[in-house]
Amino acid sequence: MSRSPGRKQENHKISRELFVLTYGALVAQLCKEYEKDEDVNACLDRMGYSIGIRLIDDFLARSAVRKCRSYSETADMIAQVAFKMYLGVTPSVSCNSVTGNEFSLILDKNPLVDFVEELPAERASLCYCNLLCGVIRGALEMVHLAAEVSFLQDRLKGDDVTEIGITFLRKPEDRRHRRNK
Amino acid sequence: MSRSPGRKQENHKISRELFVLTYGALVAQLCKEYEKDEDVNACLDRMGYSIGIRLIDDFLARSAVRKCRSYSETADMIAQVAFKMYLGVTPSVSCNSVTGNEFSLILDKNPLVDFVEELPAERASLCYCNLLCGVIRGALEMVHLAAEVSFLQDRLKGDDVTEIGITFLRKPEDRRHRRNK
Repeated sequence: MSRSPGRKQENHKISRELFVLTYGALVAQLCKEYEKDEDVNACLDRMGYSIGIRLIDDFLARSAVRKCRSYSETADMIAQVAFKMYLGVTPSVSCNSVTGNEFSLILDKNPLVDFVEELPAERASLCYCNLLCGVIRGALEMVHLAAEVSFLQDRLKGDDVTEIGITFLRKPEDRRHRRNK
Repeated sequence: MSRSPGRKQENHKISRELFVLTYGALVAQLCKEYEKDEDVNACLDRMGYSIGIRLIDDFLARSAVRKCRSYSETADMIAQVAFKMYLGVTPSVSCNSVTGNEFSLILDKNPLVDFVEELPAERASLCYCNLLCGVIRGALEMVHLAAEVSFLQDRLKGDDVTEIGITFLRKPEDRRHRRNK
């Protein structure tokens, strides 16, 4: 990844539609290649992961955010800064567990499906936007936060909203540390 | 393609990096699938064509441009309005023929290759950004302009600039009409 010195001054904004249609072409291509929805979902997640581990540099450089001090702050950062920057939308965030490590990003509208009416009947288990889960997982890993990320609800499947669940995984050494206290 | 009534008021701008990396994932996937560069190039062109025939509606609605009266005006419109809107860059335009139907869009910098250092040696014939040619071809076809679109130079291949050639194809009825005059 080489960057020219003047890169920061450039216009980083583009219109969303070309991205949305290109993403659609990518999903369609994977659906041609893989018969099982699970394989398409896994492939999108892997691709997203590779993107996330590269995108985090760009995010940290351009957002100039400070280090998050809690899972809750991290979830807010993903929703309010990263989603806004990369997809032009801001999901709402809810915490789903008393242990404070499970969160949901809730999208009333998912810009990635702008041109998609509904999933074909034979693709009922497809997580169309699974790339996003991989991107979040990859980016978090690069700031030393292991997480499981998956779709919990999807308007494309008839749900009222689209909901991405993020479960931050406590590190084994944290648990050991706690036990030894 | 269904659109909600409030769509025009929405924020259509997004950060380019997610698109650029997703496009990279798409090309990498096609390279896994097809051994020959020519097949990858053809596939990217076909995908781009499908995107172009859908994107033109969005372009016409949002740019509110008037009808172009010449090939030259059309080439300028692609460079100054469409490229600016969808990729955040403005190529320069040159006319390459006395017949006035061949143009070049010249990009000093191609935003789609931001994260690409160089093509691997075994992919020397890959037209990495061939999707763009298909998009232009598809969009033009929807406004009744047949064209051949291809890369003439590519900085990824060591050229000084990236150059996309557009040759507008005169319609057979135009030629008959001229002969009958």
